[in-house]
Amino acid sequence: MLKNDTFLRALRREPTAYTPVWLMRQAGRYLPEYNAIRTKAGSFMGVATNPALAAEVTLQPLERFPLDAAILFSDILTIPDAMGMGLSFTEGEGPRFEHAARDESAIRALAVPDMGKLAYVFDAIAQIQRALDGRVPLIGFAGSPFTLACYMIEGGASADFATVRRMIYSRPDLLAHLAALNARAVTAYLNEQIAAGVDAVMLFDTWGGLLSASAYRQFSLAPMRDVVAGLSLARDGRRIPAIVFTKGGGSWLDEIASIGADGVGLDWTVDIAAARAAVGARVALQGNLDPLALLTDPETVAREASAIVRAAGPQPGHIFNLGHGIVPGTPPDNVAALVEAVHTTSRESRAAA
Amino acid sequence: MLKNDTFLRALRREPTAYTPVWLMRQAGRYLPEYNAIRTKAGSFMGVATNPALAAEVTLQPLERFPLDAAILFSDILTIPDAMGMGLSFTEGEGPRFEHAARDESAIRALAVPDMGKLAYVFDAIAQIQRALDGRVPLIGFAGSPFTLACYMIEGGASADFATVRRMIYSRPDLLAHLAALNARAVTAYLNEQIAAGVDAVMLFDTWGGLLSASAYRQFSLAPMRDVVAGLSLARDGRRIPAIVFTKGGGSWLDEIASIGADGVGLDWTVDIAAARAAVGARVALQGNLDPLALLTDPETVAREASAIVRAAGPQPGHIFNLGHGIVPGTPPDNVAALVEAVHTTSRESRAAA
Repeated sequence: MLKNDTFLRALRREPTAYTPVWLMRQAGRYLPEYNAIRTKAGSFMGVATNPALAAEVTLQPLERFPLDAAILFSDILTIPDAMGMGLSFTEGEGPRFEHAARDESAIRALAVPDMGKLAYVFDAIAQIQRALDGRVPLIGFAGSPFTLACYMIEGGASADFATVRRMIYSRPDLLAHLAALNARAVTAYLNEQIAAGVDAVMLFDTWGGLLSASAYRQFSLAPMRDVVAGLSLARDGRRIPAIVFTKGGGSWLDEIASIGADGVGLDWTVDIAAARAAVGARVALQGNLDPLALLTDPETVAREASAIVRAAGPQPGHIFNLGHGIVPGTPPDNVAALVEAVHTTSRESRAAA
Repeated sequence: MLKNDTFLRALRREPTAYTPVWLMRQAGRYLPEYNAIRTKAGSFMGVATNPALAAEVTLQPLERFPLDAAILFSDILTIPDAMGMGLSFTEGEGPRFEHAARDESAIRALAVPDMGKLAYVFDAIAQIQRALDGRVPLIGFAGSPFTLACYMIEGGASADFATVRRMIYSRPDLLAHLAALNARAVTAYLNEQIAAGVDAVMLFDTWGGLLSASAYRQFSLAPMRDVVAGLSLARDGRRIPAIVFTKGGGSWLDEIASIGADGVGLDWTVDIAAARAAVGARVALQGNLDPLALLTDPETVAREASAIVRAAGPQPGHIFNLGHGIVPGTPPDNVAALVEAVHTTSRESRAAA
């Protein structure tokens, strides 16, 4: 049983004593203890593919801060790696695939990977859950089908993913094929994560915001709907709640809130009060402080975080987070100030209501 | 007198026989005749600072396509260059300032530049108007105060303009000072463009979409409102219409439509029918085909362009454009197909209405 289920209750829009908080990339390069492990392991993937190390770094931020959830330490690109595309990370340049899927034959040759190739992820989940011992829920995750397609076709990071965006117009059939394949792979992957014990799942749609509204609906939102619809129940028979997050999706929130997910992530450009007005009470909202606000001082961080707690309003269903991942160089003291401010301000707001 | 004032009438939300069209970066690297002049001049700024060459390349796309407006060939960074920051462009890396304004003393030392340093722009406008001889209206432009601040502080292009975004939280007073200074400079610059003869002006807010909603209001939208409020009348006593365009501003359209501009530009991520519903009849809407759709074939381009014309609906006040600038590598034949499709589809829609 969970000792702190505030995150899950907020995700189900149930009343909570305070606003739960976790942070995208809460385990990562801003923590010296993470950097020590990464140096020892030799690379990011060296940590991610070693269940003991992945479990250790997943828990590191919880030792420092009273966060209300843990998130699996992994990467969104484990699925294409398991498809045989050869993932590596180069310092400062981000991910790179040895075998990008740039043409029709390469794309048609791809298949849903054997989940055995991702056993290191499921093993890590089991180890994390043993180490957590019910302190807080554990969030599993995957990249969205479209975001995976972006990296798979481009072969790595890109400023504008022009190859994929051009394919929307030149070969929509081929992109739809890849998005559907990825949706099946992501569904299988998240269901294995659920079987291994995660308490919630999140879909990271990092690049859906590059699309036109109609292309977003077809190539990103619809495959995410298929993934959410295909999620299995937890071992105790409960539905596993799901969060979807499209960076740059602020003008489509009403549609995003309609695909069956329990929560919708907001990037920092969104006015959270306007977002609540747009989606009503259908979903929990997760977000949305600008991660760069954490590059200041504890007082500024506390002020900015409290402003978002107040703007989110008193109704149930707000999970505090950043609008994107913590950036390297963030002082850990500022993260402490953030968590403290969210907990304190939200308790005060509830007392005053 | 203008022989074709369709663009201006659409911008004033008056009925037109068809939807007018012009394209951001319609004069530029996708045209071989532009590349020939650029090679001769040695650099982009060599063309932009030579009124005869700037006039020649401004008219080049009009010789090929029946566009409904011309836009001054220039760059948004002419103002900081005139402030003494030393602008240059390097192939593939974009703009670079020799003297970035990275600290308080550098920012406080900046002043509204002597407009005489920008005489090459006003001379180009006069030459363009003589060459146009009333064929279509000429659009002048400037970067938004916030977007100029991004480049001035960062010293050039950046993936995320982290220095500026951090300053929002760490030194809002200093960023507000720079935005206000830039607003005064932009107002003076656009008023000189109006005196030199442009028929409309546009503010390019390329990076306002990186901001949180509240930071956008304070540091980008409010200074743009000041600029629009400070525009002078044309020499014939008519108000010069203004268009504001925030890339990534799709969730703030209602507020953008309220600052007094006649038109609001839409990037390609926005659903233009939803945008019309959000802003009502207050403003014209300009946009918004994905520029990457032009990297296909004439039939695909015509289909995608016609879909946007239909989605914009039959009411007055749509100016067709791309959602961002034409990309190098766009086949000119696809631009021809786009202009033809916009004109034909919109005439047919009006006839059927």
